[in-house]
Amino acid sequence: MGSLSRNSFSPLEPNSFTDESKAVIDFIADYYTNIEKYPVQSQVNPGYLSTQLPDTAPYSNDSLENILKDVSDSILPGLTHWQSPNFFGYFQANASTAGFLGEMLCSGLNVVGFNWISSPAATELESIVMDWMGKMLKLPSSFVFWNRDKALEKLGGYENITKLVIYASDQTHFTLQTASKLIGIPPSNFRSLSTSFSTEFSLSPEALRVAIEDDIKSGLVPLYLCATVGTTAAGAVDPIEELGKIAREYKLWFHIDAAYAGSACICPEFRNYLDGVELADSISMNPHKWFLTNMECCCLWIRQPSSLTDSLSTHSEIMRNSVSESNRVIDYKDWQIALSRRFRALKLWVVIRKHGLAKLMYHIRSDVNMAKRFEAMVRKDKRFEIVVPRKFALVCFRLKPKNESNGSELNSKLIDAVNSSGRAFITHAVVGGVYVIRCAIGSTLTEERHVDDLWKLIQEKAQILLLQAANCNCTCQ
Amino acid sequence: MGSLSRNSFSPLEPNSFTDESKAVIDFIADYYTNIEKYPVQSQVNPGYLSTQLPDTAPYSNDSLENILKDVSDSILPGLTHWQSPNFFGYFQANASTAGFLGEMLCSGLNVVGFNWISSPAATELESIVMDWMGKMLKLPSSFVFWNRDKALEKLGGYENITKLVIYASDQTHFTLQTASKLIGIPPSNFRSLSTSFSTEFSLSPEALRVAIEDDIKSGLVPLYLCATVGTTAAGAVDPIEELGKIAREYKLWFHIDAAYAGSACICPEFRNYLDGVELADSISMNPHKWFLTNMECCCLWIRQPSSLTDSLSTHSEIMRNSVSESNRVIDYKDWQIALSRRFRALKLWVVIRKHGLAKLMYHIRSDVNMAKRFEAMVRKDKRFEIVVPRKFALVCFRLKPKNESNGSELNSKLIDAVNSSGRAFITHAVVGGVYVIRCAIGSTLTEERHVDDLWKLIQEKAQILLLQAANCNCTCQ
Repeated sequence: MGSLSRNSFSPLEPNSFTDESKAVIDFIADYYTNIEKYPVQSQVNPGYLSTQLPDTAPYSNDSLENILKDVSDSILPGLTHWQSPNFFGYFQANASTAGFLGEMLCSGLNVVGFNWISSPAATELESIVMDWMGKMLKLPSSFVFWNRDKALEKLGGYENITKLVIYASDQTHFTLQTASKLIGIPPSNFRSLSTSFSTEFSLSPEALRVAIEDDIKSGLVPLYLCATVGTTAAGAVDPIEELGKIAREYKLWFHIDAAYAGSACICPEFRNYLDGVELADSISMNPHKWFLTNMECCCLWIRQPSSLTDSLSTHSEIMRNSVSESNRVIDYKDWQIALSRRFRALKLWVVIRKHGLAKLMYHIRSDVNMAKRFEAMVRKDKRFEIVVPRKFALVCFRLKPKNESNGSELNSKLIDAVNSSGRAFITHAVVGGVYVIRCAIGSTLTEERHVDDLWKLIQEKAQILLLQAANCNCTCQ
Repeated sequence: MGSLSRNSFSPLEPNSFTDESKAVIDFIADYYTNIEKYPVQSQVNPGYLSTQLPDTAPYSNDSLENILKDVSDSILPGLTHWQSPNFFGYFQANASTAGFLGEMLCSGLNVVGFNWISSPAATELESIVMDWMGKMLKLPSSFVFWNRDKALEKLGGYENITKLVIYASDQTHFTLQTASKLIGIPPSNFRSLSTSFSTEFSLSPEALRVAIEDDIKSGLVPLYLCATVGTTAAGAVDPIEELGKIAREYKLWFHIDAAYAGSACICPEFRNYLDGVELADSISMNPHKWFLTNMECCCLWIRQPSSLTDSLSTHSEIMRNSVSESNRVIDYKDWQIALSRRFRALKLWVVIRKHGLAKLMYHIRSDVNMAKRFEAMVRKDKRFEIVVPRKFALVCFRLKPKNESNGSELNSKLIDAVNSSGRAFITHAVVGGVYVIRCAIGSTLTEERHVDDLWKLIQEKAQILLLQAANCNCTCQ
């Protein structure tokens, strides 16, 4: 029987850890340096990777050199480069050196913070950083509660789950419907209220009130309202204050989804979009979108945390300890479904410390200014039109079709032409029945010149499409 | 109006990225080098961190040097050091250089893989790595389905949610109860079936059958059975094959939770614990526990993925693309609730590549051998006893109380004495009414000498406790 010591196998030995980690740092830095050389959208075909990698795990260990060569040869070609300065699709996923450093610290320390005692700093830094973010957003310092379990208790049991109703606009992120279904609300009880150009795709308080009254008359129980600050499709903002008053009147849980535009609200000139937030029961935002924080990071504030912990607390013997029983500490395991929890706050803390509020505001404003610049260029070209008024750093526009029924085909062709060039990446949405091109500005490396290049590229591809249409005998244009 | 370029603010500039990242690498390597100097369990008091950090975010940017100083001065003292070789609590969270490198690549590339087109490599590598893992565990290559939504459809609607019943043993991880509640199953329909010393805390197939029959007689509908390979408290293993046959007979969804011990099943000598896995609908394991993969990483295999995607698929216009519509690719957004998804497979891929199956098996066996060594030392000391037979690298033992009613107090005092010494960290469980000390061996840096030191420390503290008890006039001993 051989030695049981780690001498022959040291998977976490500090010297090789240092050397190999630094080699990966060089690899990533090199990737950033050359990032503009890659086609932004991956050009591979489905199934490409299985032709390049073995179909079973290797029996023997391999060198980092070989692994990095495979990343270069096989993985990079299959990436759509979200960190490219020419990435303008969906919403950006803002990386930064600070976010990366925070992620490394979290991963390197690799502690688990499911309860206070399992790593007190993980719990306490999370509370502190969430307070910092809350203050930057000028959120109220206290909150009230009502939820599914309380509602069901009131109604007399889980069989009444079919009476509960959820309200949101048709612009609300589609994951809310999945989440509602998950917790047992029948999809037929999800009210996706129509929006239109007339309100710039914001949820109408009148429409909400009518829907609630109708449901009450039908014997249903209004449970939850989700309002959005910066919708996915067009960056619309729901009227928080008016919606909040209705939510209070009918005792609905009122959630604000500020995933995208919440970051902008640290700037005084955007904070008005959160007016009325004191009426909300909860609000969330994603620093991994527009706050220089590498994936993944989501902030959720709850007015009364007991609303969450009453439903999610668990009292497992294995977790028992005197500090938890003293009620002097938070155990974040009681705020979530899973038990495991990384030291999540470290990354956001480093981002905030390393940039400071001033530079974070500069970052937001710089993106918004580039979006204004892009918008102005679109407006100057009569072949195009801005479809939805811009509020943040997302511009929704389109190439005007001669025949409205072809707007979708024409603009979809334009997007394909841009994306298949590899020089930039843009995506689409449909709002009010109109197919629009979305230019979401916010990749960390994007500068004015990239925005100018994007516009030139779009004009060039549009010119070709329009010429083709002019030479064509059909009625498409 | 100033320049809008990034000249004055470059949050992701390659040169500073490299320098600062390497400084953090040195910081983390230094932490590993000195890790044995820290008390394993944090010695801070609740609220300690708020006295050391400002209560609002800084307005100005700060240097990495200052931030790392604060990590040293304020964060490290608040950590319970999960990477310490003297950490034997809960289940370990295995870090490794390879896991860290994979995490860096994931964070550095920072792509989002919610559908195939958003980064094809993210989706394809995930499928490939899951196949690698599945083959290492010798999982069957195909699977069958039945779930809440199908059951509700059959029953005629969501109001029948109160009829659905979930089965598990009283040793099953407590998060299953939270998850059941989340999806709308009344807590009264969760059957936590009793286990005992006689079956080494495994779920009895007979008890399961009786419970199912009783529920059916009461008009309820058995929905889901969870079996565990390596329970949290004592590492027990449920009889997969016998339970699976009952699940098939009554058409229950059969899930196997192999979060902890799944990793061991890559070794032929442990694979028998998964015999019968072909009867399962799903199986999960956590490489972040015992597979050298930094937090967080969970593998879930589903026999028939449509069981998941039928419930979770979303068809948002903003995600539409021709490749997804061709049905030639997987869109992982349809396998989860949230939309955002990191390049999760990269970390596990690097771990497997860099170690290879041979070294991964060596890693498991080395921990199991150290556990055997510890177990043998416990058995030799007549003041102690092994309470539950050891199967993997978890040893459940206790200091024998003179008076059974004091076993809990005596052993809890022993744990406190060990943990407050700062020299090691252990935790407890209660099985079959008996309070046991858990020694979970598996921290990456743990060597034989740490296990020997732990045993010496336990003996030393036990000796003091027993002397105190002998000199005491009460009846506690």
